[in-house]
Amino acid sequence: MKKGLDIRAVIMAGGSGTRFWPLSRKRTPKQFLPIVSDKTMIEETVERLLPIISYPNIYTIANRRQTQTIQRMLPRLRKGNLLVEPVGKNTAPSLVLATARIYLQNPEAVVAALPSDHLILDNPLFAKKMLAAAEAASREKSLITFGIPPAFPSTGYGYIHYSKAGQKRVVGEKFCEVLEFKEKPDYEQARLFIESGDYYWNSGMFLWRADVFAEKLRSHAPDFYVYWLKMLEALKAKSAARMRSIFEEIPSISIDYALMEKAKGVLVCEGNFGWSDVGAWSSLADIWKKDDFGNAFKGECIVLDTSNSICFNPGKLTAFIGVKDLIVINTKDALLVCHKDQDQSVRQVLEALAKKGKTKYF
Amino acid sequence: MKKGLDIRAVIMAGGSGTRFWPLSRKRTPKQFLPIVSDKTMIEETVERLLPIISYPNIYTIANRRQTQTIQRMLPRLRKGNLLVEPVGKNTAPSLVLATARIYLQNPEAVVAALPSDHLILDNPLFAKKMLAAAEAASREKSLITFGIPPAFPSTGYGYIHYSKAGQKRVVGEKFCEVLEFKEKPDYEQARLFIESGDYYWNSGMFLWRADVFAEKLRSHAPDFYVYWLKMLEALKAKSAARMRSIFEEIPSISIDYALMEKAKGVLVCEGNFGWSDVGAWSSLADIWKKDDFGNAFKGECIVLDTSNSICFNPGKLTAFIGVKDLIVINTKDALLVCHKDQDQSVRQVLEALAKKGKTKYF
Repeated sequence: MKKGLDIRAVIMAGGSGTRFWPLSRKRTPKQFLPIVSDKTMIEETVERLLPIISYPNIYTIANRRQTQTIQRMLPRLRKGNLLVEPVGKNTAPSLVLATARIYLQNPEAVVAALPSDHLILDNPLFAKKMLAAAEAASREKSLITFGIPPAFPSTGYGYIHYSKAGQKRVVGEKFCEVLEFKEKPDYEQARLFIESGDYYWNSGMFLWRADVFAEKLRSHAPDFYVYWLKMLEALKAKSAARMRSIFEEIPSISIDYALMEKAKGVLVCEGNFGWSDVGAWSSLADIWKKDDFGNAFKGECIVLDTSNSICFNPGKLTAFIGVKDLIVINTKDALLVCHKDQDQSVRQVLEALAKKGKTKYF
Repeated sequence: MKKGLDIRAVIMAGGSGTRFWPLSRKRTPKQFLPIVSDKTMIEETVERLLPIISYPNIYTIANRRQTQTIQRMLPRLRKGNLLVEPVGKNTAPSLVLATARIYLQNPEAVVAALPSDHLILDNPLFAKKMLAAAEAASREKSLITFGIPPAFPSTGYGYIHYSKAGQKRVVGEKFCEVLEFKEKPDYEQARLFIESGDYYWNSGMFLWRADVFAEKLRSHAPDFYVYWLKMLEALKAKSAARMRSIFEEIPSISIDYALMEKAKGVLVCEGNFGWSDVGAWSSLADIWKKDDFGNAFKGECIVLDTSNSICFNPGKLTAFIGVKDLIVINTKDALLVCHKDQDQSVRQVLEALAKKGKTKYF
């Protein structure tokens, strides 16, 4: 690490997905669950950073209730680093707030904006690439993103079209120019993207120097630059009321849409460190340790004539007989039994529950 | 009912099956579980009898621990009618004991020996046929059995070959002579039995006058007649010790094998009252109320794209997505997920648990 490079991680922990229901609930979204290991995903996220970024430089941003959870779960994080969104909006407002906060401490600090609920298998490689990306963000005065080598023509991710021509090397890592951010494609488009070899999946991980971020907002997202200025003022005035009124007004859009897609000269670094957004129960089939028949279990299991199934039922016994491709999730008050190909329909279960007024399962 | 006909029901409650694991356990076998309704099967059995046999004439026979359960579950049964097998043996020893006990009260009393864990859908028809069968047992001095019109070529039941020739009518019901009791057949045999139209399933329900039972033992099962005499003596002497030593010695065989198969002049009455022995989880698919897709549930369920499945998870929510032909049974400490065609393999789960020393789930 170049001496003096001031890297601040901002962990975005405001998400509230439903795809891990019935384990995930309104009050315990995925980032607060021990889904991939015995630690919660946000704990994993912090621990992954510690070799390169120490506690005083790690921030989180989430709503008030989530922030209380974070404080309980990660007591070593500095209380002042637990940033609260006054109103739950998308990633752009959160990251403008977090970057403004850091800007007031050091305009040249590099901000690494990271999701709190993604998995990375090769943590040392991640650390190495993060340092290089921070260096690139600082030296090139560019917005930086990680692109994931696409494993299949997913229609669930955004894509990054990049140029192999103008490669830059920073601390031994390659950085390519982003040609275009692409929204989630249809299958045929996705297939063409992959065939071309010129596309990455958009990982949702970004780095920028605080002052560069401000400058890019000014040039490419003037609407948001206004909010940036207002937030700086509110922070300087330590006015929670003013920050709340800014958040009530600010559009709820993603940083991709607000800035990344519009900015010029964005650089992408290949995130070949075993990334997964752990998007739904079936994704755990590739993450948890499997038996010889492709079954992956949390909790004691007896398995007869059963294959490619996932079970989460810790502290209890589960017996499987003659099934395949099944997801079985057992919690204190609710049990999910789902075909592996249909875990996206968990949302419909919640819709059905809402119709019946059974919100106690939310 | 003919005035003065003294009918005593003996409910055999000593069974200890594993086929309803994980709901059924060593201490709570099927007869003590609310499997077909909100009442336990033995409660259902008693209630089915009450229109024709009152509490003072209803007996149970089971081991000591099971008898304590029965007393708790059915407090209106007379304590003196809760007969205890000193040693767990098969149905022949139990029924010799129970019949001897009743014989000492009234040798001409009719004993109706009934399993505690079978289902009957048409209770009024059952009551009507029971009265006729009791009358036939009394008047004809025959052993009587109920034969179930076979619904399919089952290899899981014994069969009764009967003669349509020598029919007798008693109180409007037909009684046919039994030609032969057949052990569980192979599939081809079963198919031929059904094709012939001369076979019933053996329901395991029998009636006899106590004195006729003694006489039949003497003629056709002299070995057991010796035990009959010994038991009469032990009962008269009120000697639990002597009864125990008899039970330690007596062969553990079924009443079918000990007597019914050997006796002459057994009569069978058609048990077309919606009988099921509720042999395993999958049998509940035909018993529980089903939705339009053939799903049958105990407990609140949300069902998406799911058919022909069974769920027992009372007090909790279960969500099914995209599955079929599944049995899901959730209990406090164990969850079973099983293909409907493989519920006979539950036994293997218990074997696997035994090997691992996990007897706490028994």
